[in-house]
This record gives sequence, C-alpha cells and structure tokens, in this order.
Amino acid sequence: MCEICGCTSPSRLAIEPRVSLLASNDEEARHLRGHFLANGVIALNLMGSPGSGKTALLEATARALTGRFELAAVSGDLATSLDAERLARAGIPALAITTGSACHLDAAMVHQALHDGPLGAAAARSDFFFIENVGNLVCPAIYDLGQKANVVVLSVTEGVDKPLKYPVMFSRADLVILTKIDLLPYLPEVSVRVIRENLARVMPAARMIQLSSTTGAGVPDFVEWLAEQAASL
Amino acid sequence: MCEICGCTSPSRLAIEPRVSLLASNDEEARHLRGHFLANGVIALNLMGSPGSGKTALLEATARALTGRFELAAVSGDLATSLDAERLARAGIPALAITTGSACHLDAAMVHQALHDGPLGAAAARSDFFFIENVGNLVCPAIYDLGQKANVVVLSVTEGVDKPLKYPVMFSRADLVILTKIDLLPYLPEVSVRVIRENLARVMPAARMIQLSSTTGAGVPDFVEWLAEQAASL
Repeated sequence: MCEICGCTSPSRLAIEPRVSLLASNDEEARHLRGHFLANGVIALNLMGSPGSGKTALLEATARALTGRFELAAVSGDLATSLDAERLARAGIPALAITTGSACHLDAAMVHQALHDGPLGAAAARSDFFFIENVGNLVCPAIYDLGQKANVVVLSVTEGVDKPLKYPVMFSRADLVILTKIDLLPYLPEVSVRVIRENLARVMPAARMIQLSSTTGAGVPDFVEWLAEQAASL
Repeated sequence: MCEICGCTSPSRLAIEPRVSLLASNDEEARHLRGHFLANGVIALNLMGSPGSGKTALLEATARALTGRFELAAVSGDLATSLDAERLARAGIPALAITTGSACHLDAAMVHQALHDGPLGAAAARSDFFFIENVGNLVCPAIYDLGQKANVVVLSVTEGVDKPLKYPVMFSRADLVILTKIDLLPYLPEVSVRVIRENLARVMPAARMIQLSSTTGAGVPDFVEWLAEQAASL
C-alpha cells in the first residue's frame, strides 16, 4: 500500500504511515474546504490522462463565460509551468504547482499555492477555483483537495474502455467531460454509446457532457453545469 | 517521497522504507533479468498514457511479424483483463496482472505472473517478452522490471508538450513510438517536428518511430528495431 499515492501493491511495509499520511491530508483538505466555503468559492478537482484536454477545457470555458463567473486555477505538473501560462493567457489567474516526480497533487501543495503570492486573493474572489491535477487516471483520485466536486476529462481518442480500467477515478467523478468529439468522425471504432454504458457500470449517477474545446461544441453545457453548482451553493 | 511509486511529495515520512522497497524491487528485477538473459529472452517495458495505443501496437506488431519472432506478454491493469484478452486473440500468449489500485507494475508482480500457470513456459520460449505497464506517464518509469529496454508510446492526440511535462519517463526511454499518426491531418495544432524537438531536450539519444496501428504505417520500422535488439543480444 503506497503511503502517498494510496495505491496498493505487494508491499512489505506497515500500513500505519499511509493511514497517518492520508489522515494528515484529509485534515489539510478539511481546512481548505472551510476556506473555500467561507469565501463562497466552488473548488473543482479537474482530473484526466495526460493530453486529455484539461487545460484546453479551461481555456474554452474562459472564452465562453464572458464575465459570467470569475475563475482562478492551479495546475499540477511534474516539471513545467506550461499549463498555468496557457491559463493566464486565457485570462484565468493561475499558478503552477511543480510536483517534481509526484504523480498527483495533495492538499498541502494546494494550500501552499494559495498562501504564496497573489493567487490566494484571486482565488478568494473567484466563483470557481479549478485544481488542474497531474495528468494521471490513478492516484489523483485518492487525495481529497477540499474540492466540492470531481470533474474527470476523458478524450474520445483514449478509447471506450477507460471507465472499466480505471474504476476508482470514474466512480468518484461527479461529472465526466468527453472531450475531442470533433475527432469522432475519424475514429470509427469509438462508440459514445459504449463509453456511456461503461461509465454507468462504475459511476452509478453517471453524468457526461460531450464537448470539443476546438469547435466549442458542448462548452455551453459545461457552463450550465457550473451555474447549477453555483446555484446549489 | 512515495515508498512505492517513488514519487516525491512533501511527505512527513522517513525515507528509509522507500529506499528499502526500491532496493528490494531492484533485487527482484536483477533476478528476473538473469532469467531473461539465461533464456535468450528480450524483455521490453512498454509504457505510455491511458489510451495511447500500447495494446494496439502489440496487436499490429503480431500481425506484421508473421512468425519472424515469438512474443509473449503481461498486461498491467487496475481492474480488468481486457488488454491481455486482446493480446491472446492476436496470438500473443498473455496474462493480465490486476494491480487493484497500484499505478505501476513492480518486479515482484511480473515475477509472480511468470511463476503462475503456463505463461512462464511461453515467455521462456519467446524472443520478446512485452511488459505492458499500467497506463501512466509517471510512476512506471521508476520501477526496474528486469527489462532490456524501455519503449514509451506517445499518441499524437496527447499534444506536443508531453516530453517536457513528464521528463523522467521520456529521459529513460530507449525508443519512443509516436502512435495514431493517421489522425495528424485532423490535428492542425500538432507538429511532429516540435514533438521531436521536445523529445531531444529530455532524451539525449532520442529515437522515435512514427506509427499507426490502424493503417500499419511504421510497424515495419518497429519490427526492424526489434530485429536490431535481437541481433545485439
């Protein structure tokens, strides 16, 4: 059992350090959640494979919002700040969290990002604070980051079987965004119906939005979902 | 520092357990490597994002080989044996390693798979033993599995920046297979030249094969690379 990822493995280690570490993360996440609530900020944990289109989704959302909501973001990345730079260019105040070789964000990293520099103030003013996790369909699902909801990005080019192969991630999703639907005409083997059926097998209240950040199709549906979240705050 | 993944994180844990665990994995990997060498088997650690086309590459390779080499494989997956079943249908003796929530394979898992049932004999007879890792660009790069070489699959739909964002994975690659090149005409923002330049920044002796498992383009280049590996055994 991995003490940080929370992944299981034929480990020869005692389980106590992991329990203690996850408990410590949960405590930090509770602290963050309290801050988000106190400021009326809806935090969303945005997860998905490398290259699934998480950053592109936020860019397209910023274009579509036209001032309706204020956004802020952190972007987890092993080595670069490329995504945070893209978000900043799209008008979203954003900070890169460089994880080194960590395959996920934890609550302490997010907390520290909000304490460093001007992002904290922008996040406190925002309606939605996006936590763009490290590209990975496994370990990011384990760590509570104080978010209100989990949004999982799945691109049509990844094939139809991912919900079955990564059930922990998809079973914890509040919303799945099926991205790159503009490529569907060139992927005869990919059936949206089968993706939906596979999702329903692991995600009891499956909710999926089909979207293309390139064409803008489906982006209004995501904006409506955001509005629902804001209305239920 | 993650005791199993090897990922770094602001951990409050002592470092000893991780060092001991990686040392234990290295010992198991040495044992496996000895077995592979003694049997004239070339083991390849096949890594890449979820949906990058690892299984499709092996299916296309099996079709192209037409008896030139014998293959065997294990497929790491959190919850299903779908990939191993696809490989078996493609004529490759294969066993699924179900990792539960582990985000990578370790040497003990591979060793155990070779001891369980008939796969060990098929692997011992094979020219190439493919270890298809869990879909993940982070932690699989850390664990030695006794392989001769690392083959990293990157699909053009993942965008051009992945070598920079996941430098540990790409810096340890002996070969990168750029898959799904049949989709390039529909991805105007994806430049193979930029992918190659980004690879060269993290992979000093960058070697990349452009391939489409759908059309078969580039598969002969991969077969030639396999033949080079066999010739240098």
